Amino acid sequence: MMDVPALVSQAREGKPRAVARLISLVEGASPQLREVMAALAPLTGGAYVVGLTGSPGVGKSTSTSALVTAYRKRGKRVGVLAVDPSSPFSGGALLGDRVRMSEHVSDPGVYIRSMATRGHLGGLAWAAPQAIRVLDAAGCDVILVETVGVGQSEVEIAGQADTSVVLLAPGMGDGIQAAKAGILEIGDVYVVNKADRDGADATARELNHMLGLGEARAPGDWRPPIVKTVASRGEGADELVEALEKHRAWMEEHGVLQERRTARAANETETIAVTRLRERIADLHGDRRLTALAARIVAGELDPYAAADELVKGLTSA
Amino acid sequence: MMDVPALVSQAREGKPRAVARLISLVEGASPQLREVMAALAPLTGGAYVVGLTGSPGVGKSTSTSALVTAYRKRGKRVGVLAVDPSSPFSGGALLGDRVRMSEHVSDPGVYIRSMATRGHLGGLAWAAPQAIRVLDAAGCDVILVETVGVGQSEVEIAGQADTSVVLLAPGMGDGIQAAKAGILEIGDVYVVNKADRDGADATARELNHMLGLGEARAPGDWRPPIVKTVASRGEGADELVEALEKHRAWMEEHGVLQERRTARAANETETIAVTRLRERIADLHGDRRLTALAARIVAGELDPYAAADELVKGLTSA
Repeated sequence: MMDVPALVSQAREGKPRAVARLISLVEGASPQLREVMAALAPLTGGAYVVGLTGSPGVGKSTSTSALVTAYRKRGKRVGVLAVDPSSPFSGGALLGDRVRMSEHVSDPGVYIRSMATRGHLGGLAWAAPQAIRVLDAAGCDVILVETVGVGQSEVEIAGQADTSVVLLAPGMGDGIQAAKAGILEIGDVYVVNKADRDGADATARELNHMLGLGEARAPGDWRPPIVKTVASRGEGADELVEALEKHRAWMEEHGVLQERRTARAANETETIAVTRLRERIADLHGDRRLTALAARIVAGELDPYAAADELVKGLTSA
Repeated sequence: MMDVPALVSQAREGKPRAVARLISLVEGASPQLREVMAALAPLTGGAYVVGLTGSPGVGKSTSTSALVTAYRKRGKRVGVLAVDPSSPFSGGALLGDRVRMSEHVSDPGVYIRSMATRGHLGGLAWAAPQAIRVLDAAGCDVILVETVGVGQSEVEIAGQADTSVVLLAPGMGDGIQAAKAGILEIGDVYVVNKADRDGADATARELNHMLGLGEARAPGDWRPPIVKTVASRGEGADELVEALEKHRAWMEEHGVLQERRTARAANETETIAVTRLRERIADLHGDRRLTALAARIVAGELDPYAAADELVKGLTSA
């Protein structure tokens, strides 16, 4: 068993190995998971969580790396969580790909973690919030959560982040892709990366049109900005940080940050509760109670709804 | 409100409109769902449920239709449940496609139902078993459950059927597809349809090899037969019925039928129980309890696991 209080205080001091161990404990179904989560709780809430998402090829890792550099210039401690729901491999395998991140690996003010989600109950929704809590408690000022992949995972990431950044690149038909994936509804800030390429202005215009940014809004409403970047050269990274800080200030001013974090905590609690109930039910497989109920259904003595009633009764008194 | 006992007795007499109404009641979340299920329970258990599955284009509907004809020749009442998880449309839209079925539409000994699953909690696992119960209680001797689609739905259908038929066709690279989808593990009977085409023998040989049918088995083990058919001309349908009846006799002899039905009833009960618990949790959204717990998490006073404990406690005492 790990010495959790010692690990937590080492993580607070910025020791990367302690952070890594804590994340490993919360990622899996460690028996110490609950102890870790309880120890982290009072230390969380300080980090600003930014989600970065977009189709493959738009330059998410490069943009994440450029953002890390920009935040480091401002003296911020930065955590990076790279989530790839499609990878069957954990940690190391992914990190190998992220060459752009290599410049930050030796920086003690940056903590980088890759995370695979396949095989976890509830995928990203299950493991990412807990890793975010570790990075938060470890004293990161900013946590960048990068998702590879499209669709559902992007909507999920939006639920995990304080601010969601949606990345596009010119000439990829991304506009239509974005609309399909529903990411037009989740972006707080949009980035047209690879802005030195042909078609960048057209992509920005199309996006502007689809977002209805030309339309009148109620005063006080957030108008998602579109930032043009060339992340590979670091261009536009400062503007992106400014856009993020503006969104953060707007959320604080309007109570949105508190609202989003509460909604996130509610979802997290709900997911854990559902998982726990499912596990209790799964435990009943092979249990005589469920088999006996099923046999009575087959015999025509009971219908499945009445059987479920008895099962739930049995569960909740357990 | 429907008069459920009257509907059930009309369904027993073979009135298709009563059967249709009952299925509509159990498909949706009708307030009378439980009353219907309770009324059906003592009338079920008489039907033999056969699942038919395979990639698009192998001729599932044609094969189903040929099987209906073959069973009707034997004086059996037949129910057909066509499940298409990818269709957003229910009933009618699908039936229009099933020209092959049209010859059976006016036969009072045949009941045909198409079913869409999108939007239902748990998809096929949710709605199909209940529709099967209606057809069973209505006096069908055989129920053919046809799934369009590949992968997960095929594995699910195998869980719903007494006997699972996996269909292949020559020259479609189906062998590899089948292996990928894991359907090599779920077939009790295999059909190579379109057996008049080039490559039918090769497909059968490949299948034979992949199934390891040449290998020795323990005495009493079931050895899945491979039946060649040309369903569009009804060829091989009688052989398929014979193979099905053999499998059914083997299952009865070895207690497998009872075992499978009990497992099915257990799964069904479990699904309903999980759905009910999820609904209870969903009801808590907007509930002050969950919001209050979430606010305490954001304030760092509570961790999500401790909050989930309180939530589950609250649920189970509700």
